[in-house]
Amino acid sequence: MIRPFPESYAALVQRFERHLPSTLAILPDGLLRDAVAHVLLGGGKRFRPVLCLVAAGVDPFATPPAHEPAALHAAAALEWMHTYSLVHDDLPALDDDDWRRGRATLHRKYDEATAILAGDVLHAGALALATGAPCGDGQRADLCAILAGASVAMVQGQVLDTLPAAAPDTPGLGFVLATIDGKTGAMIQAALEMGACVAGTRAANWAAFGRVLGRLFQVSDDLLDVTGTLAVLGKTPGKDAASRKVNLVALLGVDGARDFLEACRDEARALSNDLPADPDLLRALADFVADRKS
Amino acid sequence: MIRPFPESYAALVQRFERHLPSTLAILPDGLLRDAVAHVLLGGGKRFRPVLCLVAAGVDPFATPPAHEPAALHAAAALEWMHTYSLVHDDLPALDDDDWRRGRATLHRKYDEATAILAGDVLHAGALALATGAPCGDGQRADLCAILAGASVAMVQGQVLDTLPAAAPDTPGLGFVLATIDGKTGAMIQAALEMGACVAGTRAANWAAFGRVLGRLFQVSDDLLDVTGTLAVLGKTPGKDAASRKVNLVALLGVDGARDFLEACRDEARALSNDLPADPDLLRALADFVADRKS
Repeated sequence: MIRPFPESYAALVQRFERHLPSTLAILPDGLLRDAVAHVLLGGGKRFRPVLCLVAAGVDPFATPPAHEPAALHAAAALEWMHTYSLVHDDLPALDDDDWRRGRATLHRKYDEATAILAGDVLHAGALALATGAPCGDGQRADLCAILAGASVAMVQGQVLDTLPAAAPDTPGLGFVLATIDGKTGAMIQAALEMGACVAGTRAANWAAFGRVLGRLFQVSDDLLDVTGTLAVLGKTPGKDAASRKVNLVALLGVDGARDFLEACRDEARALSNDLPADPDLLRALADFVADRKS
Repeated sequence: MIRPFPESYAALVQRFERHLPSTLAILPDGLLRDAVAHVLLGGGKRFRPVLCLVAAGVDPFATPPAHEPAALHAAAALEWMHTYSLVHDDLPALDDDDWRRGRATLHRKYDEATAILAGDVLHAGALALATGAPCGDGQRADLCAILAGASVAMVQGQVLDTLPAAAPDTPGLGFVLATIDGKTGAMIQAALEMGACVAGTRAANWAAFGRVLGRLFQVSDDLLDVTGTLAVLGKTPGKDAASRKVNLVALLGVDGARDFLEACRDEARALSNDLPADPDLLRALADFVADRKS
């Protein structure tokens, strides 16, 4: 029986962060590796790696399962991929953000060229790590297929979110949800599916649970954007309002967004009973996302 | 017996270009797909796809082998990957190029945000295509491993080529060759190895042949940069000299670079005898690269 949140979450983060630095070995010493280390080892919630480990059935307080090394590989691949997306999203031509995880963004610390290339090598390195997971050929191919497919979907969501030419004149809920399911949900789904892949417990409901978890994550992010502070968030609050991006708070209002959040939480709770994992843990994960303060 | 160059090269390009548009189906209709189509279907030498098909033993004038569909998948994955690298390299923060393949670069036709994201989706899409190749699980995993590893190496080469902080004060031949082997050689090696992978004819010498072919490609590129014109090249000549980038012509002079080219051609010819493919065709490929005018 896995102990309750947040104790088990912290223990999974700790286990993951013991593994993560070793993944830098796929790059030679030098500027590029330093830049990647700055952004990859600078903290963060490690949400996608934890999801992967949970879906893989890794209990941080029990004897590790035989597939734990493969799960850690997959978790690291997800964190490399997520980090690439942050580095590129923060670029001046996109969200133009100066702060991320409480540190200067890569293009502020180095320059734009370094940030573009570090993002590119994080993207490629993510797939290279997935191909090197210590598991069967079919699983390795599936890990890459899940991760590459999610990366395609993530960029599509980012396009809808960022490029005015890709958005309708009056974006409705359907458009906003398609944006969220791409830019946020795709990698969260991939985290669960990759964990289930190495554990041999793939099921269609992982995708549904991942999608609703992504929506929960995004609506709480949108709410934090209007209620949070730089000190707590580690990134600039109020950016969405300033850039007049369409998000759930802008569309539904604060109260409407809170209602949407509760509806997603209910949906996640319902789905948690039909998955090959501890339902209490899955519900705790949904609550963790819904109630987060940063 | 495969007919001699350039007839067989043109026939392989034609076969590849009949297949390539279908790969756009991994993206939904819209701005992103339009941008990708602009840059992917805008011509080009299709050099890496042709290498892949040659290493896979596809003879355009004979009955296609059973693995031809997998070879075309791998070839398309390579072209998506190569095209991503062109789009990002052309960005203002990197080479700042306005022309590519005789057309406006993506950030000139659209904007920087679109170019960054189109590059990202070409990168992800390349891996997604590789995972979808119609072949065995082991081959699919290997295709992804080769392609992702080459992408990591390509970015490393680009870093050495572009970021002054990554270069030594007085770059010698060793540094320049390491740069070339990354930014140009890695994907050429990958093309040969992916072709051999689907055909079941992997051999250590493919990597050595790919490396020397990459050096041949780059030295002829460097020579064209000082002797070519926009009309023939389809991109701006004299960029290297203007940006004071280190290249083989700057290091060795025009005559020294021509000597280096002939030494590479000799090495390629020698290696062509120890590979599981038609040696006449491999030698013709090396000559094609060495003697190209654009």
